Amino acid sequence: MTRLKFYYDLMSQPCRALYILLKINKIPFEPCLVNLRKGEQYADFFKNQISRFQKVPVLHDKDFKLTENVAILRYLTREFQIDDHWYPKDSKKQARVDEYLEWQHNNTRLNCTLYFIHAYLNPRLMGKEVKPEELAAYKRNMEETLNKIEDLWLGQGTKYLAGDVISYADILAACELEQPRKLHSKE
Amino acid sequence: MTRLKFYYDLMSQPCRALYILLKINKIPFEPCLVNLRKGEQYADFFKNQISRFQKVPVLHDKDFKLTENVAILRYLTREFQIDDHWYPKDSKKQARVDEYLEWQHNNTRLNCTLYFIHAYLNPRLMGKEVKPEELAAYKRNMEETLNKIEDLWLGQGTKYLAGDVISYADILAACELEQPRKLHSKE
Repeated sequence: MTRLKFYYDLMSQPCRALYILLKINKIPFEPCLVNLRKGEQYADFFKNQISRFQKVPVLHDKDFKLTENVAILRYLTREFQIDDHWYPKDSKKQARVDEYLEWQHNNTRLNCTLYFIHAYLNPRLMGKEVKPEELAAYKRNMEETLNKIEDLWLGQGTKYLAGDVISYADILAACELEQPRKLHSKE
Repeated sequence: MTRLKFYYDLMSQPCRALYILLKINKIPFEPCLVNLRKGEQYADFFKNQISRFQKVPVLHDKDFKLTENVAILRYLTREFQIDDHWYPKDSKKQARVDEYLEWQHNNTRLNCTLYFIHAYLNPRLMGKEVKPEELAAYKRNMEETLNKIEDLWLGQGTKYLAGDVISYADILAACELEQPRKLHSKE
């Protein structure tokens, strides 16, 4: 029996980022699929047994239940063998990765997700239309975030978001950025 | 000369939380006030010398510049003597504090701030009115967050947000929650 159960749906960007981290680092886990489109996270069973927050990703380490992508990443780096560059032990290098992981919540995560929801999920799956001027505002916010990623993060002369080696910040950013890109590739 | 320079405005909730942490733990720092109402963070000097993100809080540890409240907290706990309960070294206890610190970005922080901006800052300081139905929606989102704090966090039978001892999660939550409370106490 594996120690970890990982609850996820690959539709979700933070789930994909953690899934990639687990796989790259060969951390064994029991994969537990949660179908978000079917609303499985809202079932009583999920709420009572898996996570009261009714969201994915969720990690169970035996009876210890943890949510929140970045909290899970940090827990995994303490408990398992993960190549150092993904989340460096060096204090200043770790701070640089943390800086992006905290910044992204109300930038990459929020603005790419809001655009994706209003441009794709709501109109195409829920039959909920958005006013053109509202959609334009969501798009503008996303583009502002993309400009910040280029200018404030990558524009610092480093090869990756948090320095010259690839880190979990890059995995997470890539997972967020591919979501709206996929949308346009279908149009 | 102290090692740390801390750039802050006590108007800002994350600045207050870090300020409290620094003071409680008697970490010496040079206080550097940034007047947000005067827009001092938008000055070229700030952008070029203090932080390209043009936000507070910012920490300078000699020539190492760091933004993002939670990233700064974690850096301080690695570099200075901070009472363990504020941010426990125990892996599972630390994960519990992290879980709240990550959750709050798009809950407590986002929803209390949006309500405060639209109920107070925009109309009273900027002369920008908000439609009543929009303000009602911001208020509803904030109230949903407050319900989650009561039910999903404090409703778990623990005395504080992340367990039975006070942690940085509580300082940060208190700083966020007092902002809209102050607004209503003036009405």
